[in-house]
Amino acid sequence: MVNTEKPIIYLDHAATSWPKPPEVTDAVIQAMLNDAANPGRGSHAMAVRASRILFDTRKHLAKLFNIKNPNDIAFTSNTTMSLNMAIKGYLKPGDHIITTSVEHNSVRRPLYYLEQTIGIEVTYLESDEQGSLDIDEVSKAIRPQTTLIVVNHSSNLLGTIMPVAAIAELTKKHGIKLLVDAAQSAGILPIDVKAMGIDMLAFPGHKGLLGPQGTGGLYIDPELQLAPLLHGGTGSQSEAREQPLVRPDRYEAGTQNTPGIAGLKAGVQYVLNETVQKIHTKEWALSQRLMEGLKLINEVKLLGPELGEQRTGIVAFNVDGVDPSELSFILDQHYHIAVRAGFHCTPLAHACAGTTETGAIRASVGVYTTDKEVDALSAAIKEIAKQYKA
Amino acid sequence: MVNTEKPIIYLDHAATSWPKPPEVTDAVIQAMLNDAANPGRGSHAMAVRASRILFDTRKHLAKLFNIKNPNDIAFTSNTTMSLNMAIKGYLKPGDHIITTSVEHNSVRRPLYYLEQTIGIEVTYLESDEQGSLDIDEVSKAIRPQTTLIVVNHSSNLLGTIMPVAAIAELTKKHGIKLLVDAAQSAGILPIDVKAMGIDMLAFPGHKGLLGPQGTGGLYIDPELQLAPLLHGGTGSQSEAREQPLVRPDRYEAGTQNTPGIAGLKAGVQYVLNETVQKIHTKEWALSQRLMEGLKLINEVKLLGPELGEQRTGIVAFNVDGVDPSELSFILDQHYHIAVRAGFHCTPLAHACAGTTETGAIRASVGVYTTDKEVDALSAAIKEIAKQYKA
Repeated sequence: MVNTEKPIIYLDHAATSWPKPPEVTDAVIQAMLNDAANPGRGSHAMAVRASRILFDTRKHLAKLFNIKNPNDIAFTSNTTMSLNMAIKGYLKPGDHIITTSVEHNSVRRPLYYLEQTIGIEVTYLESDEQGSLDIDEVSKAIRPQTTLIVVNHSSNLLGTIMPVAAIAELTKKHGIKLLVDAAQSAGILPIDVKAMGIDMLAFPGHKGLLGPQGTGGLYIDPELQLAPLLHGGTGSQSEAREQPLVRPDRYEAGTQNTPGIAGLKAGVQYVLNETVQKIHTKEWALSQRLMEGLKLINEVKLLGPELGEQRTGIVAFNVDGVDPSELSFILDQHYHIAVRAGFHCTPLAHACAGTTETGAIRASVGVYTTDKEVDALSAAIKEIAKQYKA
Repeated sequence: MVNTEKPIIYLDHAATSWPKPPEVTDAVIQAMLNDAANPGRGSHAMAVRASRILFDTRKHLAKLFNIKNPNDIAFTSNTTMSLNMAIKGYLKPGDHIITTSVEHNSVRRPLYYLEQTIGIEVTYLESDEQGSLDIDEVSKAIRPQTTLIVVNHSSNLLGTIMPVAAIAELTKKHGIKLLVDAAQSAGILPIDVKAMGIDMLAFPGHKGLLGPQGTGGLYIDPELQLAPLLHGGTGSQSEAREQPLVRPDRYEAGTQNTPGIAGLKAGVQYVLNETVQKIHTKEWALSQRLMEGLKLINEVKLLGPELGEQRTGIVAFNVDGVDPSELSFILDQHYHIAVRAGFHCTPLAHACAGTTETGAIRASVGVYTTDKEVDALSAAIKEIAKQYKA
């Protein structure tokens, strides 16, 4: 059933991973055909099977992130929802928040909204051209009113890996909570919420965890109590006017996405079997190979960490004299290579990378990406750069 | 691939419809295999196909509900999210809201939360035993501060159909907005937002519209501007700190559920082909047949509208001397009949139906339900009632 007319070289894994492992699609189909009654809303056999899918998926995720109690994970429909749940559920008027200039709009926009409405203060720490953060700057920014630090684990534009554990040492010392945006790292970089001191972890299901779109989650430390983003039916304590305190019900009002979560379960199982370390090593090698290829082209300006340094499988760049949107259009139309052009919902990261006016091309690899595919991108860029020069 | 060991008689369509039309599952698979790049986040061919799926689904929904501009529909993950988006996005401190005693917790809990936090006032109109509403009572409850009436189109416990158009005459006259919870009516009862005077329509994808779980939507009248429930990336106006005003982007931050929405598209297409009127007529006939069967059993007490009256395909009842949870367990284990027992997230509806202590059994039919299946339920209840009496 796969469309084989135009073999695509898909290098847009940072937006959504594709293709999914076959067992992910199979799990979605099986759930739709046999199990997708309403989980937690009835005691008949199919509803119980649906509940079981959610429970098993939580267990897999807990194993992956070293979370003690699977019920401290709430399912959401994407990382944006997870981040909104964490930020709007935790912050109170007068709070001071520290974050960085390379955060995604899913952090920047909720914070700005709260600045304008309930009245919070936000310090945006400038990162350097590579997207890195000076830990001393974080330390200096802490005030008595600071209640939360929000930081991405890895930049969605630059592939930079943030010093999360070092930041957590500061938050623990000052009694501040740490919210980590793992949109570009869940299933891609090792994450251990305990060892890394993470109080809240927002993650997508459809990127590095290889599940379907429409899935995601938020880990909430058991010590933390958030105001729920959604109030509604939970299948529990129906008589109460308040959202129940029991987890995960408190943070999961409404019918959950059983088929999507069944797919996520298979995706996380795939990641656990492969191991995150092996996936990271492979994707890093691909990123290095791509950077080496692109570095041979004079017109290319690479963004983010230098060759040889740590990063994820994201490689962003520009080609002198070629508009990124036009470049991605040519790559798509003439080479069947899918990359993303533009601002990637991260305007301030472009400011630090000096690409505010133009945006950039972002190529991102996944678990099935081959050497041949990244070489094809380098070769295409070489041809295009040459044509534009002529 | 369907599990055929135990043929299930599935009468829990009010929780989630099952099975889905084969074309729904096919559409989900096709999207996962070929199209599920990130919609609106890139210009490559697969991302464009994903955007197209969302656009086409919006068009189908607009046709079904007589909505002029498909972009006035925002996708959500379920009705609960739609209702939270509408209620929390529209209401302001000091507002007075009118609603009913038979609303779902997805209305009752967000309202109670706002009562406790920002300070709104809510009038809960008592419905009668049949779940009906006296339009004069609605009229009398209106105050100068009244800004919103929230009402279900059809009760999730009693199957009652609310006089939405009559309520809309009042809201139009008084400049009040009308939010309709179509959780139990979208795809089941005719809905025309224009003719019925609906300002906001919250609907699920996975019930009467026959799509997968994890889908839903909110129609927002173009004159209305809500504070978004989610702030984040939209793939548009990345540089702005505010959520863009353009629809649907404003209300759809984060990656959308492309495979789920592809399934929803096929589900809505099925409903459009069958026509809602035909589906309603069929389900009404099934509800009448079930009620006739149950009425022959002395121990059964039926809830909601009388035989012959308008209702949806929901039939709730109790059996004298048998606890509903136990009854549903026996139906599941011994008869492979799936119904729901309990409070159905509607505690006040139970108060009006006189079942606050016990809850009730809810049987609900769907597009594939047969006469034979509802007869099997009646026969099973007759047997069980006899055994309990002996």
